[in-house]
Amino acid sequence: MTRQELIEQIREKRSFLCVGLDPDIKKIPAFIHEECKAKLQEGEDYDEAVALYVFNQLIIDATAPYCVAYKPNLAFYESLGASGIISYELTVQYIKENYPHHFIIADAKRGDIGNTSAMYARTFFEGESQVDALTVAPYMGEDSVSPFLGYEGKWVILLALTSNKGSHDFQLTEDKESERLFEKVLKVSQQWGTDENMMYVVGATQGRMFEDIRKVVPNHFLLVPGVGAQGGSLQEVCQYGMTKDCGLLVNSSRGIIYASNDEDFAEAAAAAAKKLQQEMAEELNKKGF
Amino acid sequence: MTRQELIEQIREKRSFLCVGLDPDIKKIPAFIHEECKAKLQEGEDYDEAVALYVFNQLIIDATAPYCVAYKPNLAFYESLGASGIISYELTVQYIKENYPHHFIIADAKRGDIGNTSAMYARTFFEGESQVDALTVAPYMGEDSVSPFLGYEGKWVILLALTSNKGSHDFQLTEDKESERLFEKVLKVSQQWGTDENMMYVVGATQGRMFEDIRKVVPNHFLLVPGVGAQGGSLQEVCQYGMTKDCGLLVNSSRGIIYASNDEDFAEAAAAAAKKLQQEMAEELNKKGF
Repeated sequence: MTRQELIEQIREKRSFLCVGLDPDIKKIPAFIHEECKAKLQEGEDYDEAVALYVFNQLIIDATAPYCVAYKPNLAFYESLGASGIISYELTVQYIKENYPHHFIIADAKRGDIGNTSAMYARTFFEGESQVDALTVAPYMGEDSVSPFLGYEGKWVILLALTSNKGSHDFQLTEDKESERLFEKVLKVSQQWGTDENMMYVVGATQGRMFEDIRKVVPNHFLLVPGVGAQGGSLQEVCQYGMTKDCGLLVNSSRGIIYASNDEDFAEAAAAAAKKLQQEMAEELNKKGF
Repeated sequence: MTRQELIEQIREKRSFLCVGLDPDIKKIPAFIHEECKAKLQEGEDYDEAVALYVFNQLIIDATAPYCVAYKPNLAFYESLGASGIISYELTVQYIKENYPHHFIIADAKRGDIGNTSAMYARTFFEGESQVDALTVAPYMGEDSVSPFLGYEGKWVILLALTSNKGSHDFQLTEDKESERLFEKVLKVSQQWGTDENMMYVVGATQGRMFEDIRKVVPNHFLLVPGVGAQGGSLQEVCQYGMTKDCGLLVNSSRGIIYASNDEDFAEAAAAAAKKLQQEMAEELNKKGF
Protein backbone atom coordinates (compact mmCIF):
# COMPACT_ATOMS: atom_id res chain seq x y z
CA MET A 1 0.00 0.00 0.00
CA THR A 2 1.32 3.47 -0.83
CA ARG A 3 1.51 6.38 1.58
CA GLN A 4 -1.21 8.20 -0.34
CA GLU A 5 -3.56 5.21 -0.17
CA LEU A 6 -3.01 4.93 3.56
CA ILE A 7 -3.76 8.63 4.05
CA GLU A 8 -6.95 8.24 1.99
CA GLN A 9 -8.07 5.36 4.20
CA ILE A 10 -7.50 7.43 7.33
CA ARG A 11 -9.43 10.33 5.83
CA GLU A 12 -12.39 8.15 4.83
CA LYS A 13 -12.66 6.19 8.02
CA ARG A 14 -11.81 9.05 10.39
CA SER A 15 -9.50 6.62 12.10
CA PHE A 16 -5.81 5.88 12.41
CA LEU A 17 -6.38 2.88 14.61
CA CYS A 18 -4.30 -0.27 14.24
CA VAL A 19 -5.67 -3.34 16.00
CA GLY A 20 -2.98 -5.61 17.43
CA LEU A 21 -3.82 -9.25 16.77
CA ASP A 22 -1.90 -10.82 19.66
CA PRO A 23 -4.09 -13.79 20.56
CA ASP A 24 -2.70 -15.56 23.62
CA ILE A 25 -3.92 -19.15 23.52
CA LYS A 26 -4.37 -18.99 27.30
CA LYS A 27 -6.83 -16.11 26.98
CA ILE A 28 -9.01 -17.24 24.08
CA PRO A 29 -12.61 -17.56 25.34
CA ALA A 30 -13.43 -21.20 26.13
CA PHE A 31 -16.50 -21.30 23.90
CA ILE A 32 -14.31 -20.80 20.81
CA HIS A 33 -12.41 -23.97 21.61
CA GLU A 34 -15.72 -25.78 22.13
CA GLU A 35 -17.06 -24.59 18.78
CA CYS A 36 -13.88 -25.63 16.99
CA LYS A 37 -13.98 -29.07 18.62
CA ALA A 38 -17.62 -29.51 17.62
CA LYS A 39 -16.61 -29.12 13.97
CA LEU A 40 -13.95 -31.87 14.00
CA GLN A 41 -14.37 -34.88 11.74
CA GLU A 42 -14.48 -38.24 13.44
CA GLY A 43 -11.04 -39.38 14.53
CA GLU A 44 -9.52 -35.93 13.94
CA ASP A 45 -7.42 -34.48 16.79
CA TYR A 46 -8.05 -30.98 18.05
CA ASP A 47 -5.28 -28.49 17.30
CA GLU A 48 -5.77 -25.52 19.59
CA ALA A 49 -3.93 -23.21 17.16
CA VAL A 50 -7.10 -23.26 15.05
CA ALA A 51 -8.75 -21.20 17.78
CA LEU A 52 -6.31 -18.34 17.14
CA TYR A 53 -7.55 -18.02 13.59
CA VAL A 54 -11.23 -18.30 14.54
CA PHE A 55 -10.74 -15.73 17.32
CA ASN A 56 -8.96 -13.39 14.89
CA GLN A 57 -11.70 -13.67 12.26
CA LEU A 58 -14.32 -12.62 14.79
CA ILE A 59 -12.16 -9.76 16.06
CA ILE A 60 -11.44 -8.59 12.52
CA ASP A 61 -15.09 -8.64 11.44
CA ALA A 62 -16.05 -6.72 14.57
CA THR A 63 -13.36 -4.05 14.37
CA ALA A 64 -12.81 -3.53 10.62
CA PRO A 65 -15.16 -0.51 10.39
CA TYR A 66 -13.17 1.34 13.05
CA CYS A 67 -9.56 0.70 12.10
CA VAL A 68 -7.26 1.12 9.11
CA ALA A 69 -4.62 -1.45 10.04
CA TYR A 70 -4.04 -4.81 11.69
CA LYS A 71 -0.84 -5.85 13.39
CA PRO A 72 -0.36 -9.52 14.22
CA ASN A 73 2.64 -10.02 16.53
CA LEU A 74 4.46 -13.14 15.43
CA ALA A 75 5.40 -14.21 18.95
CA PHE A 76 1.83 -15.23 19.67
CA TYR A 77 1.69 -17.51 16.61
CA GLU A 78 5.20 -18.94 16.75
CA SER A 79 4.60 -20.12 20.30
CA LEU A 80 2.28 -22.77 18.81
CA GLY A 81 4.82 -23.97 16.25
CA ALA A 82 3.88 -24.77 12.67
CA SER A 83 0.14 -24.77 13.43
CA GLY A 84 0.48 -21.29 14.85
CA ILE A 85 2.20 -20.14 11.67
CA ILE A 86 -0.68 -21.53 9.64
CA SER A 87 -3.11 -19.54 11.82
CA TYR A 88 -0.99 -16.44 11.23
CA GLU A 89 -0.95 -16.96 7.45
CA LEU A 90 -4.69 -17.64 7.33
CA THR A 91 -5.29 -14.49 9.36
CA VAL A 92 -3.30 -12.40 6.89
CA GLN A 93 -5.11 -14.00 3.96
CA TYR A 94 -8.47 -13.42 5.62
CA ILE A 95 -7.78 -9.71 5.97
CA LYS A 96 -6.51 -9.41 2.40
CA GLU A 97 -9.54 -11.17 0.96
CA ASN A 98 -12.21 -9.51 3.06
CA TYR A 99 -10.74 -6.12 3.91
CA PRO A 100 -8.27 -5.41 1.11
CA HIS A 101 -7.89 -1.74 2.05
CA HIS A 102 -6.59 -2.49 5.53
CA PHE A 103 -2.86 -2.08 6.03
CA ILE A 104 -1.23 -5.20 7.49
CA ILE A 105 1.84 -5.01 9.70
CA ALA A 106 3.76 -8.13 10.70
CA ASP A 107 5.19 -7.23 14.09
CA ALA A 108 8.23 -9.46 14.18
CA LYS A 109 11.07 -7.06 15.06
CA ARG A 110 13.46 -8.86 12.73
CA GLY A 111 16.95 -7.81 11.67
CA ASP A 112 20.04 -9.82 10.73
CA ILE A 113 23.06 -9.64 8.42
CA GLY A 114 22.25 -8.80 4.80
CA ASN A 115 21.72 -12.23 3.24
CA THR A 116 19.63 -13.32 6.22
CA SER A 117 17.50 -10.17 6.26
CA ALA A 118 16.90 -10.80 2.55
CA MET A 119 15.52 -14.20 3.54
CA TYR A 120 13.19 -12.59 6.11
CA ALA A 121 12.08 -10.11 3.43
CA ARG A 122 11.02 -13.02 1.23
CA THR A 123 9.02 -14.48 4.10
CA PHE A 124 7.04 -11.34 4.80
CA PHE A 125 6.92 -9.53 1.45
CA GLU A 126 6.43 -12.38 -1.07
CA GLY A 127 3.79 -15.04 -1.61
CA GLU A 128 0.12 -15.19 -0.73
CA SER A 129 0.57 -14.22 2.94
CA GLN A 130 2.57 -11.11 2.17
CA VAL A 131 1.98 -8.10 4.37
CA ASP A 132 2.39 -4.35 3.83
CA ALA A 133 4.94 -3.71 6.52
CA LEU A 134 7.36 -5.38 8.90
CA THR A 135 8.79 -4.07 12.16
CA VAL A 136 12.59 -4.20 12.16
CA ALA A 137 15.18 -3.67 14.92
CA PRO A 138 17.89 -1.14 14.01
CA TYR A 139 20.80 -2.41 16.15
CA MET A 140 22.64 -4.12 13.27
CA GLY A 141 22.54 -1.09 10.98
CA GLU A 142 22.01 -0.44 7.30
CA ASP A 143 22.65 -3.81 5.67
CA SER A 144 20.25 -5.45 8.14
CA VAL A 145 17.46 -3.07 7.11
CA SER A 146 17.97 -2.30 3.42
CA PRO A 147 16.98 -5.77 2.08
CA PHE A 148 13.43 -4.96 3.23
CA LEU A 149 13.37 -1.70 1.27
CA GLY A 150 13.55 -3.16 -2.23
CA TYR A 151 9.85 -4.04 -2.46
CA GLU A 152 7.41 -1.62 -4.06
CA GLY A 153 4.54 -0.65 -1.80
CA LYS A 154 6.15 -2.39 1.19
CA TRP A 155 7.31 -0.70 4.37
CA VAL A 156 9.94 -1.08 7.06
CA ILE A 157 8.80 0.10 10.47
CA LEU A 158 12.01 0.67 12.38
CA LEU A 159 12.12 0.61 16.17
CA ALA A 160 13.07 4.08 17.37
CA LEU A 161 11.75 4.87 20.87
CA THR A 162 9.75 1.95 22.21
CA SER A 163 6.93 1.95 24.76
CA ASN A 164 8.54 -0.27 27.40
CA LYS A 165 10.58 0.57 30.47
CA GLY A 166 13.72 -0.91 28.87
CA SER A 167 13.59 1.80 26.21
CA HIS A 168 15.57 3.87 28.72
CA ASP A 169 18.46 1.43 28.85
CA PHE A 170 20.04 2.27 25.49
CA GLN A 171 17.67 4.31 23.33
CA LEU A 172 18.16 7.48 25.39
CA THR A 173 21.96 7.26 25.54
CA GLU A 174 23.42 10.59 24.43
CA ASP A 175 26.48 10.76 22.23
CA LYS A 176 29.14 13.46 22.37
CA GLU A 177 26.94 15.90 20.45
CA SER A 178 24.04 15.23 22.88
CA GLU A 179 22.20 13.27 20.23
CA ARG A 180 20.25 10.40 21.74
CA LEU A 181 20.47 6.96 20.17
CA PHE A 182 16.85 6.97 18.98
CA GLU A 183 17.47 10.34 17.32
CA LYS A 184 20.53 8.93 15.61
CA VAL A 185 18.46 5.97 14.40
CA LEU A 186 15.86 8.38 12.99
CA LYS A 187 18.49 10.53 11.34
CA VAL A 188 20.82 7.89 9.91
CA SER A 189 18.02 5.64 8.63
CA GLN A 190 16.63 8.47 6.51
CA GLN A 191 19.58 7.80 4.23
CA TRP A 192 18.28 4.26 3.69
CA GLY A 193 14.62 4.87 2.94
CA THR A 194 12.04 7.61 2.53
CA ASP A 195 8.72 8.57 4.08
CA GLU A 196 7.18 6.41 1.32
CA ASN A 197 8.68 3.14 2.56
CA MET A 198 9.75 3.69 6.14
CA MET A 199 7.93 4.38 9.38
CA TYR A 200 9.14 4.37 12.97
CA VAL A 201 7.90 2.77 16.18
CA VAL A 202 7.45 5.34 18.93
CA GLY A 203 5.69 4.31 22.13
CA ALA A 204 2.62 6.25 23.26
CA THR A 205 4.14 6.25 26.74
CA GLN A 206 6.83 8.66 25.52
CA GLY A 207 4.52 11.72 25.75
CA ARG A 208 6.27 14.97 24.92
CA MET A 209 9.17 13.15 23.31
CA PHE A 210 7.02 13.20 20.17
CA GLU A 211 7.97 16.88 19.86
CA ASP A 212 11.64 15.96 19.63
CA ILE A 213 10.87 13.14 17.22
CA ARG A 214 8.93 15.42 14.89
CA LYS A 215 11.98 17.71 14.72
CA VAL A 216 13.91 14.85 13.09
CA VAL A 217 11.13 13.14 11.10
CA PRO A 218 8.48 15.76 10.37
CA ASN A 219 6.70 13.71 7.70
CA HIS A 220 7.21 10.03 8.43
CA PHE A 221 4.38 7.93 9.71
CA LEU A 222 4.85 6.69 13.26
CA LEU A 223 3.48 3.40 14.54
CA VAL A 224 2.48 4.09 18.12
CA PRO A 225 1.87 1.18 20.50
CA GLY A 226 1.26 1.62 24.21
CA VAL A 227 -2.17 3.26 24.34
CA GLY A 228 -4.37 1.31 26.76
CA ALA A 229 -2.79 -1.54 28.76
CA GLN A 230 0.60 0.20 28.75
CA GLY A 231 -0.77 3.58 29.85
CA GLY A 232 -0.06 5.99 26.96
CA SER A 233 -2.42 8.92 26.21
CA LEU A 234 -3.95 9.25 22.74
CA GLN A 235 -4.48 12.99 23.21
CA GLU A 236 -0.88 13.59 24.14
CA VAL A 237 0.36 11.52 21.19
CA CYS A 238 -1.82 13.57 18.82
CA GLN A 239 -0.90 16.89 20.37
CA TYR A 240 2.81 16.34 19.84
CA GLY A 241 2.95 13.76 17.06
CA MET A 242 0.21 14.41 14.52
CA THR A 243 1.12 15.97 11.16
CA LYS A 244 -0.98 17.52 8.40
CA ASP A 245 -1.23 14.03 6.83
CA CYS A 246 -2.08 12.53 10.22
CA GLY A 247 1.25 10.71 10.27
CA LEU A 248 0.16 8.29 12.99
CA LEU A 249 -0.99 4.72 13.27
CA VAL A 250 -1.96 4.16 16.89
CA ASN A 251 -2.08 0.55 17.98
CA SER A 252 -4.19 -1.07 20.65
CA SER A 253 -3.98 -4.81 21.27
CA ARG A 254 -5.06 -6.03 24.69
CA GLY A 255 -7.48 -3.13 25.25
CA ILE A 256 -9.49 -4.30 22.25
CA ILE A 257 -9.07 -8.02 21.82
CA TYR A 258 -9.52 -8.77 25.52
CA ALA A 259 -12.16 -6.13 26.23
CA SER A 260 -14.23 -9.12 27.36
CA ASN A 261 -13.41 -12.79 27.92
CA ASP A 262 -16.97 -13.96 27.47
CA GLU A 263 -19.17 -14.81 24.50
CA ASP A 264 -19.61 -11.07 23.92
CA PHE A 265 -15.87 -10.55 23.32
CA ALA A 266 -16.35 -9.52 19.67
CA GLU A 267 -19.02 -6.92 20.54
CA ALA A 268 -16.81 -5.67 23.37
CA ALA A 269 -13.87 -5.44 20.96
CA ALA A 270 -16.02 -3.50 18.49
CA ALA A 271 -17.11 -1.12 21.24
CA ALA A 272 -13.55 -0.54 22.41
CA ALA A 273 -12.37 0.02 18.83
CA LYS A 274 -15.29 2.36 18.13
CA LYS A 275 -14.53 4.40 21.24
CA LEU A 276 -10.93 4.86 20.12
CA GLN A 277 -12.05 5.66 16.57
CA GLN A 278 -14.35 8.39 17.86
CA GLU A 279 -11.56 9.92 19.91
CA MET A 280 -9.36 9.76 16.82
CA ALA A 281 -12.01 11.43 14.65
CA GLU A 282 -12.06 14.30 17.15
CA GLU A 283 -8.31 14.66 16.96
CA LEU A 284 -8.41 14.63 13.15
CA ASN A 285 -11.17 17.24 13.17
CA LYS A 286 -9.14 19.45 15.48
CA LYS A 287 -6.32 19.41 12.94
CA GLY A 288 -8.75 20.09 10.07
CA PHE A 289 -7.79 16.79 8.44
CA MET B 1 23.28 -27.12 29.21
CA THR B 2 25.41 -25.56 31.94
CA ARG B 3 28.58 -23.57 31.40
CA GLN B 4 30.61 -26.36 32.97
CA GLU B 5 29.11 -28.98 30.66
CA LEU B 6 29.87 -26.83 27.64
CA ILE B 7 33.48 -26.36 28.75
CA GLU B 8 33.80 -30.13 29.21
CA GLN B 9 32.55 -30.72 25.67
CA ILE B 10 35.08 -28.27 24.28
CA ARG B 11 37.86 -29.93 26.25
CA GLU B 12 36.93 -33.44 25.10
CA LYS B 13 36.42 -32.62 21.46
CA ARG B 14 39.26 -30.10 21.16
CA SER B 15 36.78 -27.90 19.33
CA PHE B 16 34.72 -24.80 19.94
CA LEU B 17 33.11 -24.96 16.53
CA CYS B 18 29.46 -24.12 16.02
CA VAL B 19 27.99 -25.18 12.68
CA GLY B 20 25.42 -22.77 11.31
CA LEU B 21 22.45 -24.66 9.86
CA ASP B 22 21.27 -22.04 7.36
CA PRO B 23 19.95 -24.17 4.51
CA ASP B 24 18.86 -21.96 1.62
CA ILE B 25 16.28 -23.89 -0.38
CA LYS B 26 17.84 -22.46 -3.55
CA LYS B 27 21.21 -24.01 -2.72
CA ILE B 28 20.21 -27.49 -1.57
CA PRO B 29 21.85 -30.03 -3.93
CA ALA B 30 19.37 -31.21 -6.56
CA PHE B 31 19.84 -34.91 -5.79
CA ILE B 32 18.36 -34.38 -2.30
CA HIS B 33 15.13 -33.14 -3.82
CA GLU B 34 15.14 -36.13 -6.17
CA GLU B 35 15.64 -38.58 -3.31
CA CYS B 36 12.84 -36.95 -1.30
CA LYS B 37 10.49 -37.09 -4.29
CA ALA B 38 11.29 -40.76 -4.87
CA LYS B 39 10.02 -41.54 -1.37
CA LEU B 40 6.61 -39.91 -1.83
CA GLN B 41 3.49 -42.05 -1.53
CA GLU B 42 1.22 -42.14 -4.56
CA GLY B 43 -0.83 -38.95 -4.87
CA GLU B 44 1.30 -37.13 -2.27
CA ASP B 45 2.56 -33.66 -3.24
CA TYR B 46 6.21 -32.78 -2.83
CA ASP B 47 6.91 -30.19 -0.13
CA GLU B 48 10.39 -28.82 -0.76
CA ALA B 49 10.80 -27.86 2.91
CA VAL B 50 11.39 -31.56 3.61
CA ALA B 51 14.70 -31.18 1.80
CA LEU B 52 15.92 -28.73 4.45
CA TYR B 53 15.55 -31.39 7.11
CA VAL B 54 17.15 -34.13 5.02
CA PHE B 55 20.02 -31.80 4.12
CA ASN B 56 20.48 -30.89 7.79
CA GLN B 57 20.52 -34.51 8.93
CA LEU B 58 23.33 -35.30 6.49
CA ILE B 59 25.27 -32.17 7.50
CA ILE B 60 24.81 -32.96 11.20
CA ASP B 61 25.93 -36.59 10.88
CA ALA B 62 28.97 -35.47 8.90
CA THR B 63 30.05 -32.64 11.19
CA ALA B 64 29.06 -33.81 14.69
CA PRO B 65 32.51 -35.22 15.55
CA TYR B 66 34.11 -31.84 14.89
CA CYS B 67 31.79 -29.35 16.53
CA VAL B 68 30.22 -28.73 19.93
CA ALA B 69 27.24 -26.65 18.81
CA TYR B 70 24.68 -26.18 16.05
CA LYS B 71 23.01 -22.90 15.21
CA PRO B 72 19.96 -22.96 12.93
CA ASN B 73 19.04 -19.45 11.79
CA LEU B 74 15.26 -19.17 11.81
CA ALA B 75 15.11 -16.96 8.70
CA PHE B 76 15.97 -19.91 6.48
CA TYR B 77 13.11 -22.01 7.87
CA GLU B 78 10.48 -19.29 8.22
CA SER B 79 10.86 -18.41 4.56
CA LEU B 80 9.10 -21.72 3.77
CA GLY B 81 6.20 -21.05 6.12
CA ALA B 82 4.75 -23.71 8.38
CA SER B 83 6.55 -26.54 6.56
CA GLY B 84 9.83 -24.76 7.14
CA ILE B 85 9.06 -24.52 10.85
CA ILE B 86 8.43 -28.27 10.93
CA SER B 87 11.83 -28.82 9.29
CA TYR B 88 13.38 -26.57 11.93
CA GLU B 89 11.70 -28.44 14.78
CA LEU B 90 12.64 -31.83 13.35
CA THR B 91 16.22 -30.64 12.98
CA VAL B 92 16.37 -29.61 16.64
CA GLN B 93 14.82 -32.91 17.71
CA TYR B 94 17.24 -34.85 15.53
CA ILE B 95 20.22 -33.21 17.22
CA LYS B 96 18.79 -33.76 20.70
CA GLU B 97 18.10 -37.43 20.07
CA ASN B 98 21.28 -38.30 18.25
CA TYR B 99 23.82 -35.85 19.64
CA PRO B 100 22.49 -34.91 23.07
CA HIS B 101 25.76 -33.29 24.16
CA HIS B 102 25.71 -30.70 21.38
CA PHE B 103 24.68 -27.20 22.38
CA ILE B 104 21.81 -25.86 20.23
CA ILE B 105 21.41 -22.16 19.49
CA ALA B 106 18.29 -20.80 17.81
CA ASP B 107 19.56 -17.78 15.92
CA ALA B 108 16.41 -15.68 15.78
CA LYS B 109 17.54 -12.28 17.12
CA ARG B 110 14.26 -11.79 18.95
CA GLY B 111 13.35 -9.06 21.44
CA ASP B 112 10.06 -7.35 22.25
CA ILE B 113 8.21 -5.84 25.22
CA GLY B 114 8.08 -8.04 28.32
CA ASN B 115 4.89 -10.05 27.80
CA THR B 116 5.81 -10.68 24.17
CA SER B 117 9.38 -11.72 24.94
CA ALA B 118 7.89 -14.12 27.49
CA MET B 119 5.90 -15.64 24.63
CA TYR B 120 9.07 -16.03 22.54
CA ALA B 121 10.77 -17.63 25.54
CA ARG B 122 8.03 -20.28 25.63
CA THR B 123 8.56 -20.96 21.93
CA PHE B 124 12.28 -21.57 22.20
CA PHE B 125 12.78 -22.83 25.76
CA GLU B 126 9.75 -25.09 26.32
CA GLY B 127 8.40 -28.22 24.63
CA GLU B 128 10.10 -30.96 22.67
CA SER B 129 11.93 -28.63 20.28
CA GLN B 130 13.49 -26.56 23.03
CA VAL B 131 17.01 -25.29 22.45
CA ASP B 132 19.83 -24.32 24.80
CA ALA B 133 20.20 -20.72 23.71
CA LEU B 134 18.55 -17.93 21.77
CA THR B 135 20.12 -14.89 20.15
CA VAL B 136 18.41 -11.67 21.32
CA ALA B 137 18.68 -8.05 20.16
CA PRO B 138 19.39 -5.57 22.96
CA TYR B 139 17.78 -2.41 21.56
CA MET B 140 14.62 -2.60 23.70
CA GLY B 141 16.51 -3.05 26.98
CA GLU B 142 16.09 -5.08 30.13
CA ASP B 143 12.44 -6.11 30.09
CA SER B 144 12.84 -7.37 26.52
CA VAL B 145 15.70 -9.66 27.57
CA SER B 146 14.94 -10.77 31.14
CA PRO B 147 11.98 -13.08 30.28
CA PHE B 148 14.51 -15.37 28.57
CA LEU B 149 16.67 -15.56 31.69
CA GLY B 150 14.20 -17.40 33.92
CA TYR B 151 14.94 -20.86 32.49
CA GLU B 152 17.49 -23.12 34.16
CA GLY B 153 20.24 -24.26 31.83
CA LYS B 154 19.06 -21.90 29.08
CA TRP B 155 21.05 -19.01 27.67
CA VAL B 156 20.50 -15.60 26.14
CA ILE B 157 23.09 -14.68 23.51
CA LEU B 158 22.86 -10.92 23.26
CA LEU B 159 23.98 -9.05 20.15
CA ALA B 160 26.92 -6.85 21.11
CA LEU B 161 29.28 -6.14 18.20
CA THR B 162 28.08 -7.89 15.08
CA SER B 163 30.07 -9.09 12.08
CA ASN B 164 28.37 -7.00 9.38
CA LYS B 165 29.21 -3.60 7.90
CA GLY B 166 26.13 -2.06 9.53
CA SER B 167 27.62 -2.79 12.95
CA HIS B 168 29.37 0.58 12.53
CA ASP B 169 26.13 2.52 12.20
CA PHE B 170 25.10 2.46 15.86
CA GLN B 171 27.12 -0.08 17.83
CA LEU B 172 30.28 2.06 17.80
CA THR B 173 28.56 5.31 18.79
CA GLU B 174 30.42 6.83 21.74
CA ASP B 175 28.56 8.41 24.62
CA LYS B 176 29.79 11.39 26.63
CA GLU B 177 32.15 9.18 28.63
CA SER B 178 33.58 7.71 25.40
CA GLU B 179 31.83 4.42 26.07
CA ARG B 180 30.70 2.82 22.84
CA LEU B 181 27.18 1.43 22.57
CA PHE B 182 28.32 -2.20 22.37
CA GLU B 183 30.37 -1.66 25.53
CA LYS B 184 27.35 -0.20 27.27
CA VAL B 185 25.32 -3.22 26.19
CA LEU B 186 27.99 -5.52 27.63
CA LYS B 187 28.19 -3.56 30.87
CA VAL B 188 24.51 -2.88 31.53
CA SER B 189 23.35 -6.39 30.62
CA GLN B 190 25.64 -7.91 33.24
CA GLN B 191 23.11 -6.64 35.77
CA TRP B 192 20.47 -8.84 34.11
CA GLY B 193 22.26 -12.16 33.80
CA THR B 194 25.53 -13.90 34.62
CA ASP B 195 28.23 -15.77 32.74
CA GLU B 196 26.17 -18.89 33.48
CA ASN B 197 23.15 -17.80 31.41
CA MET B 198 24.33 -15.08 29.08
CA MET B 199 26.73 -14.92 26.15
CA TYR B 200 27.39 -12.19 23.59
CA VAL B 201 27.59 -12.12 19.81
CA VAL B 202 30.84 -10.58 18.61
CA GLY B 203 31.72 -10.81 14.92
CA ALA B 204 35.01 -12.44 13.91
CA THR B 205 35.51 -9.50 11.56
CA GLN B 206 36.05 -7.22 14.57
CA GLY B 207 39.68 -8.34 15.07
CA ARG B 208 41.45 -6.50 17.87
CA MET B 209 38.16 -5.21 19.26
CA PHE B 210 38.09 -8.51 21.16
CA GLU B 211 40.72 -6.98 23.46
CA ASP B 212 38.33 -4.18 24.40
CA ILE B 213 35.48 -6.64 24.81
CA ARG B 214 37.46 -8.85 27.18
CA LYS B 215 38.08 -5.80 29.39
CA VAL B 216 34.32 -5.60 29.99
CA VAL B 217 33.38 -9.31 29.92
CA PRO B 218 36.48 -11.27 30.89
CA ASN B 219 34.62 -14.54 31.54
CA HIS B 220 31.52 -14.64 29.37
CA PHE B 221 31.33 -16.94 26.40
CA LEU B 222 31.23 -15.15 23.07
CA LEU B 223 29.42 -16.50 20.02
CA VAL B 224 31.58 -15.49 17.08
CA PRO B 225 30.14 -15.58 13.56
CA GLY B 226 31.96 -14.26 10.54
CA VAL B 227 34.82 -16.72 10.08
CA GLY B 228 34.85 -17.89 6.45
CA ALA B 229 32.43 -16.27 4.00
CA GLN B 230 32.49 -12.99 5.93
CA GLY B 231 36.28 -12.85 6.17
CA GLY B 232 37.10 -13.05 9.89
CA SER B 233 40.31 -14.70 11.13
CA LEU B 234 40.13 -17.56 13.64
CA GLN B 235 43.68 -16.91 14.84
CA GLU B 236 42.98 -13.25 15.55
CA VAL B 237 39.75 -14.08 17.38
CA CYS B 238 41.64 -16.57 19.57
CA GLN B 239 44.58 -14.27 20.17
CA TYR B 240 42.40 -11.50 21.54
CA GLY B 241 39.24 -13.30 22.66
CA MET B 242 40.12 -16.67 24.17
CA THR B 243 39.98 -17.11 27.97
CA LYS B 244 41.28 -19.83 30.28
CA ASP B 245 37.92 -21.61 29.84
CA CYS B 246 38.09 -21.08 26.06
CA GLY B 247 35.16 -18.67 26.24
CA LEU B 248 34.46 -18.89 22.53
CA LEU B 249 31.99 -20.58 20.23
CA VAL B 250 33.10 -19.82 16.70
CA ASN B 251 30.44 -20.28 14.05
CA SER B 252 30.81 -21.18 10.41
CA SER B 253 27.76 -21.61 8.21
CA ARG B 254 28.27 -21.21 4.48
CA GLY B 255 31.94 -22.30 4.62
CA ILE B 256 30.82 -25.71 5.88
CA ILE B 257 27.33 -26.45 4.60
CA TYR B 258 28.08 -25.25 1.06
CA ALA B 259 31.67 -26.53 0.88
CA SER B 260 30.35 -28.46 -2.13
CA ASN B 261 27.07 -28.36 -4.03
CA ASP B 262 27.42 -31.88 -5.37
CA GLU B 263 26.64 -35.33 -4.07
CA ASP B 264 29.81 -35.11 -1.96
CA PHE B 265 28.50 -32.09 -0.01
CA ALA B 266 28.40 -33.97 3.29
CA GLU B 267 31.98 -35.22 2.96
CA ALA B 268 33.05 -31.72 1.93
CA ALA B 269 31.24 -30.29 4.97
CA ALA B 270 32.98 -32.83 7.21
CA ALA B 271 36.35 -31.91 5.73
CA ALA B 272 35.73 -28.17 6.19
CA ALA B 273 34.57 -28.73 9.77
CA LYS B 274 37.52 -31.00 10.51
CA LYS B 275 39.96 -28.40 9.18
CA LEU B 276 38.50 -25.75 11.47
CA GLN B 277 38.49 -28.20 14.39
CA GLN B 278 42.18 -28.89 13.89
CA GLU B 279 42.98 -25.19 13.82
CA MET B 280 40.93 -24.81 16.99
CA ALA B 281 42.75 -27.69 18.69
CA GLU B 282 46.02 -25.88 18.00
CA GLU B 283 44.68 -22.70 19.52
CA LEU B 284 43.47 -24.59 22.60
CA ASN B 285 46.84 -26.31 22.93
CA LYS B 286 48.62 -22.96 22.73
CA LYS B 287 46.59 -21.76 25.72
CA GLY B 288 47.22 -25.03 27.60
CA PHE B 289 43.49 -25.77 27.70
